Amino acid sequence: METLLLDSDDVDSNARMSEVIDAVEAAFAAFERGDTQMPAKSYIDLPQYNGDFRSMPAYLETADWDAAGLKWVNVHPDNPRDHDLPTVLGTMIYSDPETAFPLAIMDGTELTMKRTGAAAAVATDYLAIDDAATLGIVGAGVQSYTQLEAISQVRPIEEVIVSDLDDERIERFIDTFGDEFDVREGSISEAGHCDVLSTVTPVEEPIVGLEDVGDRTHVNAIGADAAGKHELTDDLLEAATIVIDDYEQCTHSGEINVPWSAGVLTDEDIHAEIGEVVVGTTAGRTDETGVTVFDSTGLAIQDVAAARVTYENARANDAGYDFGMIDPGR
Amino acid sequence: METLLLDSDDVDSNARMSEVIDAVEAAFAAFERGDTQMPAKSYIDLPQYNGDFRSMPAYLETADWDAAGLKWVNVHPDNPRDHDLPTVLGTMIYSDPETAFPLAIMDGTELTMKRTGAAAAVATDYLAIDDAATLGIVGAGVQSYTQLEAISQVRPIEEVIVSDLDDERIERFIDTFGDEFDVREGSISEAGHCDVLSTVTPVEEPIVGLEDVGDRTHVNAIGADAAGKHELTDDLLEAATIVIDDYEQCTHSGEINVPWSAGVLTDEDIHAEIGEVVVGTTAGRTDETGVTVFDSTGLAIQDVAAARVTYENARANDAGYDFGMIDPGR
Repeated sequence: METLLLDSDDVDSNARMSEVIDAVEAAFAAFERGDTQMPAKSYIDLPQYNGDFRSMPAYLETADWDAAGLKWVNVHPDNPRDHDLPTVLGTMIYSDPETAFPLAIMDGTELTMKRTGAAAAVATDYLAIDDAATLGIVGAGVQSYTQLEAISQVRPIEEVIVSDLDDERIERFIDTFGDEFDVREGSISEAGHCDVLSTVTPVEEPIVGLEDVGDRTHVNAIGADAAGKHELTDDLLEAATIVIDDYEQCTHSGEINVPWSAGVLTDEDIHAEIGEVVVGTTAGRTDETGVTVFDSTGLAIQDVAAARVTYENARANDAGYDFGMIDPGR
Repeated sequence: METLLLDSDDVDSNARMSEVIDAVEAAFAAFERGDTQMPAKSYIDLPQYNGDFRSMPAYLETADWDAAGLKWVNVHPDNPRDHDLPTVLGTMIYSDPETAFPLAIMDGTELTMKRTGAAAAVATDYLAIDDAATLGIVGAGVQSYTQLEAISQVRPIEEVIVSDLDDERIERFIDTFGDEFDVREGSISEAGHCDVLSTVTPVEEPIVGLEDVGDRTHVNAIGADAAGKHELTDDLLEAATIVIDDYEQCTHSGEINVPWSAGVLTDEDIHAEIGEVVVGTTAGRTDETGVTVFDSTGLAIQDVAAARVTYENARANDAGYDFGMIDPGR
């Protein structure tokens, strides 16, 4: 029995986005139904290296399948400058829940991008206007690409407006998607007046205000991943219908953490967790809904769900490298 | 930059026991000094498969090196009967703390056996009589082999008495070690009257009593790894000088958990954590010491310390397989 090894290219080509979106949607529903186990992330803080490690184990069960696994991931912001490495490096172990056999070990960095895009697509599907054809992107770094890849699976996106302080990032983004979409550079406010906006920046001071978005824009707030970070102003959040992925994570380190900690937002300002919207216990967008915001912190069950899609497709496609790590005779 | 993949044979040949013992000893000292980070193990319980997963992340710093990593491990007792797989399957990710780059991914099953033997050797070195020449083994399953391998590194073991209900296990043990040591089958009491005894069974009712051990025997109690399990009778524990690896783990799921929960043993009956003995703040064996017991539950820092030895030796020996899991350009 062998463990399948999948590098970043294998993950990229086998984590087919439409299937990852379906799997992540099923994971959100399982979370709402109580059919998941997701212990709190364990942190190891290494201030001497300006970095930390996070351990993210999870199990989930849907009507059709169950899956288990763990992502070991970090944030080391000095990596690009000092070591020519990404800030975030992930390793995913995907395990058979019945026997615990490690079915696959795969690049968790690429996987994280896929499942983060997929989460935005699920939220967009429930919260954006039906005929959304324009998408704004604020922050054109590595995590922004799967926003367009994923959201264009659930809405007929034609026009994309991308905003970033760095011209090289803009250029690279347009080069990548220019053939498929009408992509152009624009201001934050131009991006925010699209039907859908994804904010993908690490800022600690908000850069998108209420006046920067359209009356019925749906905003995917992706960037905030630690206490003290937020991308949207308080007045935008106060005006919006807010959907979160997980109460504990969002109030601690998501887009809403700063105003929630300050008492500007309270629990009553939170419309729902995304799982409630997916299973239908709380409504998504209706004719009366104005601006919506999805606060995405990223759940371990998203990684496991995306890893399952990746593994199943890779096995079917004979991708990857078989590794006899474990000797079953011992 | 590549991640080194090491299978069970690679771990076996590169986790050189004398070096693993030194590394585990250094890890215990670092733990006592407060130079470790070891979040509580996260559990995922899957009663429908009679199994569970455990996530064990850790970081430690010694005078000469630091190291980080995570072991993802399980206990699925039906695996041997139903799936021809071991009960315990482990995967270890060994990471560079400075950048979080996954330096190696290795079989955590073999690694667990090595570091568990090494912990017993460290305890034996501080707690057994200096000229210990006889070793008893109660329970000749897969975890018993590294007891002899490791303990014979720190004491001049010549004679080994092995006790087990299963004749095949006895035979296999004698076949493995018969050339190097004078190994014979014996009763529990014969094994217990050796200078050093290691108990390596999964029993829930004690099988070794005070009358079964010598006046100055040192006992490594390895088997208990869950609430409700113990191998030694209360009167043996009450008479012994007890050294534990970690207070939280031992009182929850180690050898002492049952009598401690019942109030038969109290904190005053615990002589020390092994780290205190290693750094010298508490004495090990003295001329007055009678029976000693080391309660070993297994710490995540042992895995990381053992993984470091394995990785360094494997790189030096050109062992394993280089895997370009992560694309640094993303």
